[in-house]
Amino acid sequence: MNIYEVLGMFAAIITTASFLPQVYKTWKSKDTKALSLTMYIAFFIGVSLWTVYGFYLNSLPMIVANTITAISTLILIRLKLKYK
Amino acid sequence: MNIYEVLGMFAAIITTASFLPQVYKTWKSKDTKALSLTMYIAFFIGVSLWTVYGFYLNSLPMIVANTITAISTLILIRLKLKYK
Repeated sequence: MNIYEVLGMFAAIITTASFLPQVYKTWKSKDTKALSLTMYIAFFIGVSLWTVYGFYLNSLPMIVANTITAISTLILIRLKLKYK
Repeated sequence: MNIYEVLGMFAAIITTASFLPQVYKTWKSKDTKALSLTMYIAFFIGVSLWTVYGFYLNSLPMIVANTITAISTLILIRLKLKYK
């Protein structure tokens, strides 16, 4: 692993970690009013495409970060549909 | 440009576009109460690292998407500091 791959790993950890508090907050509060369903569905499609693109680039940080973010977004979408 | 690079470009457009409404909303409302400064600073560092990593991977979608997101995040941080 070279220095750029280490930077990519840090990027993956930081941006993924900054998304998780939103998931946790929504999970706990069940308050999904402020969340836009359309935006989250679009975002889910976007991070899924990043994951596919990550496989193409053979980039572990991209695959790991976007898979976790895609799953988190699916959880938010499910909460939104359940508590709307 | 092959099919994977097209997917990457779509990923870039979708995830960047889904971040911009937040910037616009905050810009208009000047309401930054719900935004966590720490989280946005961390996120700014994260997307900056993704940009550097994008240069390393020679990936135009990653460079463009993360540069725009980094600038947007800087705007949010500046609004947060100005209207806190």
